Amino acid sequence: MKKRRISKAIKIGGVTVGGGASIVVQSMTKTDTRDVMSTIRQIQELEECGCELIRVAVPDDEAAQSLPAIKKNIAIPLIADIHFDYRLALAALTAGVDGLRLNPGNITQPDKVSTIVRAAMERDVPIRIGVNAGSLPKTVNPKLNTAQQMVAIAMQQIRFLEELDFSLIKVSLKAFDVPTTIEAYRNIASKIPYPLHLGITEAGPPRSGIIRSVAGISTLLYAGIGDTIRVSLSSHPREEVFSAYEILKSLDLRQHGPALVTCPSCGRAEVDIISLAAEVEEKLKYIDKPIKVAVMGCEVNGPGEARDADIGIACGKGKAVLFKRGEKIGVVEEGNFIGVLMKEIEDFIIG
Amino acid sequence: MKKRRISKAIKIGGVTVGGGASIVVQSMTKTDTRDVMSTIRQIQELEECGCELIRVAVPDDEAAQSLPAIKKNIAIPLIADIHFDYRLALAALTAGVDGLRLNPGNITQPDKVSTIVRAAMERDVPIRIGVNAGSLPKTVNPKLNTAQQMVAIAMQQIRFLEELDFSLIKVSLKAFDVPTTIEAYRNIASKIPYPLHLGITEAGPPRSGIIRSVAGISTLLYAGIGDTIRVSLSSHPREEVFSAYEILKSLDLRQHGPALVTCPSCGRAEVDIISLAAEVEEKLKYIDKPIKVAVMGCEVNGPGEARDADIGIACGKGKAVLFKRGEKIGVVEEGNFIGVLMKEIEDFIIG
Repeated sequence: MKKRRISKAIKIGGVTVGGGASIVVQSMTKTDTRDVMSTIRQIQELEECGCELIRVAVPDDEAAQSLPAIKKNIAIPLIADIHFDYRLALAALTAGVDGLRLNPGNITQPDKVSTIVRAAMERDVPIRIGVNAGSLPKTVNPKLNTAQQMVAIAMQQIRFLEELDFSLIKVSLKAFDVPTTIEAYRNIASKIPYPLHLGITEAGPPRSGIIRSVAGISTLLYAGIGDTIRVSLSSHPREEVFSAYEILKSLDLRQHGPALVTCPSCGRAEVDIISLAAEVEEKLKYIDKPIKVAVMGCEVNGPGEARDADIGIACGKGKAVLFKRGEKIGVVEEGNFIGVLMKEIEDFIIG
Repeated sequence: MKKRRISKAIKIGGVTVGGGASIVVQSMTKTDTRDVMSTIRQIQELEECGCELIRVAVPDDEAAQSLPAIKKNIAIPLIADIHFDYRLALAALTAGVDGLRLNPGNITQPDKVSTIVRAAMERDVPIRIGVNAGSLPKTVNPKLNTAQQMVAIAMQQIRFLEELDFSLIKVSLKAFDVPTTIEAYRNIASKIPYPLHLGITEAGPPRSGIIRSVAGISTLLYAGIGDTIRVSLSSHPREEVFSAYEILKSLDLRQHGPALVTCPSCGRAEVDIISLAAEVEEKLKYIDKPIKVAVMGCEVNGPGEARDADIGIACGKGKAVLFKRGEKIGVVEEGNFIGVLMKEIEDFIIG
């Protein structure tokens, strides 16, 4: 894995993004922002899943007016997502948001952008320059490819903010196309010192959207690029937070709850490993400690294949071998597999 | 994206792996191989999903004896997965399999390996040297890290096969740990000319296993490495095939059925985009042409954001804009969203 790109640290509320801090997991609400109660409830649910920054859409005045009540009832920093109307950005700042996201394709007039920037500067509120491949301004050079166009628009906006002495900048360059997205981020990563927010835009429903998102985000993270990530899925945002952590866990960038090692099952398996793995996965949802648990399909190969696991079970016909860091510690009869395994896991956690 | 590593082409049955051929999608059955009917049924189902190579476990004589009947009733090449007993490899070759997978950690005696290799050579049957991080032989140098150990074991086996004048070789180096897996493949990629089979081993149940698999496989593919992939999941193998194609589609490496662009929904959406996207996703399962379909949550931003889509719908309050390659072609009333969209998709496909 490449060494992480060193970016300038910025603070969004109490959360540091960039400068070598842990990669921050963020999401966006899907409730109507004007529906204050539902929005607060959704954010609180996301906080419980480990969401560290939350963005809400602010499409009109009523949504802007909901922000103080939302802000008051949540624990994580609140970011307002603004398109088209610069006055909504001002209203969001007045309401006390911790961050702004502006799309340079949707607010293009320099005087309006500078009005927002000055108001953000007064309050030390960072701005994300959030470029989307599909909403580039018409002024972009059509001879450039999409990735280059995205970078050009972002650079133009960055230079504009820098001229106003504003440096609390975070940048995203999102496209549906993964190679385009990767190219854009790799390109801008060497040009600017600011932290990067990674994501694939409009990636789709979970089944395909997770795969598209991981393909883009993990390739960039492996290249050392990225300070905060959002997995955009057409589903409840808790799936976004879950997926974000699984990406970070996969690349050993963060720990977050258990890791589950399970064999895919094959013609050698003598028990229904798929159901067993699903059952263990369900039970592990209630454990938040970073423990590595293995559910393996054959007694002969199992413990060896999962020797890095803290606790595991390797199932044979009618019985299973229980193991701890690759060493056999007991034999369990069928019917007790889950019970004994979960007991061992609890003991391991308590220490 | 890096230029693809040029590997030696080998043929497994009628399927070319390596040498610049399309990246091949493979899977493994989860049925008891001795249960011939169930195994054939599962393979036929996988063929329908686009699986191009299928592997079956051959843990005993009865499984080996099932191979001719299985082979006779399937259309894609059959690979026998052998551990421990070299005689099962010989039986599988006699049964007419198109490929063998050997784990150098589990068949270690040189005379037994050479007996298999000679029999494979007579029949022009390729062998995958399938190293798993968890089943490395005890002879490995403990001073090396896991990735280096995996490469060392593979290289030792490769040199042994080369000395026997055997070159129908494919190599895999799988671990649960993604950075370890990536390091191992990157390391061996520059050392040998043979095609590489990519995968993350024991990646887990679908929810976390897909993410872990994609993080490893897509990072390698983006680096130009990999000739065939298997996504190992503790679930029905059709999920493995689906995920494999989604990875390849995400990186523009292959086309396979529709691509679905859907916005994640946010406080700007005026209809339930998540349900709508799920419904469209379900309907698209029956379409096998490569068409890009968009379901967007706001009328203003939607068509622009999804301008690359062939056909799309951008939903506002009570009505939606229908668009074709970013151009508005009509307005649809709520209640007809899906019907009109699907009709347009069908017309587009028929051309």
